[in-house]
Amino acid sequence: MLKPDELKIEPVDNANLRNEIQLRLDSLTKPPGSLGVLEILVMRYCLCKGSVDAHINRKSICVFAGDHGIAAEGVAPYPREVTVQMVHNMLAGGAAVTVMCKTAGMDYRIVDMGVDDNFADHPFFINKKVAPGTRSFMQGDAMTKQECSSAVTAGIDVAYSLQCDIAAVGEMGIGNTSSASALYALILEKNGSDAVGAGTGATGAVLEQKRRIIDAAVQFHREQWDKTAEDALRRVGGFEIAGMTGYILGCAAKRIPVVVDGFIATAAALCAVKMNPAVVDYLFFGHVSNEQFHKTVLVEMGVTALLNLGMRLGEGTGAVLAVQIIEQALNCYHNMATFSSAGVTNPDV
Amino acid sequence: MLKPDELKIEPVDNANLRNEIQLRLDSLTKPPGSLGVLEILVMRYCLCKGSVDAHINRKSICVFAGDHGIAAEGVAPYPREVTVQMVHNMLAGGAAVTVMCKTAGMDYRIVDMGVDDNFADHPFFINKKVAPGTRSFMQGDAMTKQECSSAVTAGIDVAYSLQCDIAAVGEMGIGNTSSASALYALILEKNGSDAVGAGTGATGAVLEQKRRIIDAAVQFHREQWDKTAEDALRRVGGFEIAGMTGYILGCAAKRIPVVVDGFIATAAALCAVKMNPAVVDYLFFGHVSNEQFHKTVLVEMGVTALLNLGMRLGEGTGAVLAVQIIEQALNCYHNMATFSSAGVTNPDV
Repeated sequence: MLKPDELKIEPVDNANLRNEIQLRLDSLTKPPGSLGVLEILVMRYCLCKGSVDAHINRKSICVFAGDHGIAAEGVAPYPREVTVQMVHNMLAGGAAVTVMCKTAGMDYRIVDMGVDDNFADHPFFINKKVAPGTRSFMQGDAMTKQECSSAVTAGIDVAYSLQCDIAAVGEMGIGNTSSASALYALILEKNGSDAVGAGTGATGAVLEQKRRIIDAAVQFHREQWDKTAEDALRRVGGFEIAGMTGYILGCAAKRIPVVVDGFIATAAALCAVKMNPAVVDYLFFGHVSNEQFHKTVLVEMGVTALLNLGMRLGEGTGAVLAVQIIEQALNCYHNMATFSSAGVTNPDV
Repeated sequence: MLKPDELKIEPVDNANLRNEIQLRLDSLTKPPGSLGVLEILVMRYCLCKGSVDAHINRKSICVFAGDHGIAAEGVAPYPREVTVQMVHNMLAGGAAVTVMCKTAGMDYRIVDMGVDDNFADHPFFINKKVAPGTRSFMQGDAMTKQECSSAVTAGIDVAYSLQCDIAAVGEMGIGNTSSASALYALILEKNGSDAVGAGTGATGAVLEQKRRIIDAAVQFHREQWDKTAEDALRRVGGFEIAGMTGYILGCAAKRIPVVVDGFIATAAALCAVKMNPAVVDYLFFGHVSNEQFHKTVLVEMGVTALLNLGMRLGEGTGAVLAVQIIEQALNCYHNMATFSSAGVTNPDV
């Protein structure tokens, strides 16, 4: 059971390796740079792995699930029990993310970090339940220090228990856009209401209520917040967000690139980067969510996302689509002919 | 051998079918609309097929190849023989598009519309050669009326000879960004130089030369152009662009959705739409090319592309990536559980 400060996360840059990868990219039968972002993906992936010959064989996604006390405040159009129901739906393969994984040839695991029910054993299920849901963070903390630390450590544990070449991360939890919005507002020092969007589809009075609640909660916590990601997670986070934070840290320590899904998964990425800035080298942001504040967050983090498809489902759906693009980039890198092997004239040499 | 005006292309819209598809989308275990563009793809695909239950089983891409007289004017950094060499590379499976097809489970065919060499028989090769390259369009026409008509008809023929549920289209031809730029400038009534970009990587003097040549050629042809797409194709087009135009028309007539690749394939799409506006319902634009004028063209056509990955390779590479996204959208539509089948609470009903 490793804790975050026991992890050694190495920056990926290495000038010699970068040159080697670039030479190989430029030897392939295409004008230099013409695969655009795909060439950047190859470069970043190989640098993460520390190898000019890094492959993607095993792809895996972990979907972290948890319930939220804040859901009782009327911030979401779906009732709390939908978290449990959707975990069952994922285990049965009927949720969007699991359907997509099947096509993409990706393994998936559903990690119960704090869902308000118990689940039977299942080959795709990992039980890391800290408690059956957080408390409302309106006037108090979502979790205790101990609970938060356990959740992060459990996420690290999941990263160390799985074998894969590339790891995607997504989530399920009714109320969790509220938690993510509050985390962003605290950590990025924004108004709570600016960080709030429709989530699963809040409109009219529900959206107004969500804005008011998050704004008030962020004001309440801002005064006492100790400016660390751990304290922000404990105050307004969720068990699944803390679990994803640990998972991202653990993957980075193992030099496994992590494809981050949308609005909520990015909150975990932000916490992980705040806990250890070297993590950012290992992160690939899958897509820009339709949740309005996500674009601002990506800009604040200085990162860009691969896809922009107006999605706002979460679960990891945007991350799976992005993994398929990264896989195609690596396939081109490994399987394209070179100018010399194919006998194609290369005016650049 | 059907000619363009012998094709019957039906507009896809159908209010009853649209409602049926929407009801089915909204029955799936996700907030309504939360799959964003993926839901629009499902809607458009099923409308093209005229069925609430349209599947994607067989995916296919045709890569049309041809040589260009304009290449002799020093507009491209690669020599003319690269067209032939790359056709061989594609047939051997070493080009980016063919590598990507293998991962995506897509069939591919290379169609020789006008390459300056002869090829042996090959299971993935289709010979529709009109002539071994066009003439330079600097002071005259790239092809005769008869050649242009033959090329378009050959493309229709290819569409009718292949069996697939979704068809992508890409190209290969040294000099063909020059031809595409000239087509855009003529048809969209722009300056030739504004429509010119780096192509495979023209910079400095080569790029300046390309701008000057295309600008002068467009001015020369503009005065005599009869305002039809056929006449534009004949004057400044290429055999592979005319072939793609016919292919797109033929696919639309067969109600097969077509995923259009980048800058050059879009020129064929523009010609096809100009020849028959109903075609646009069947078109899916795979990506925004890094070739600067492509974005303007998409705006002028009133369409949006799925991906924006800074790619500028052509061949159909962006289209293959887009097909994978469309396939995932359809997989979700067919394989996700419904609220009732999964026992998930749906507050919207």
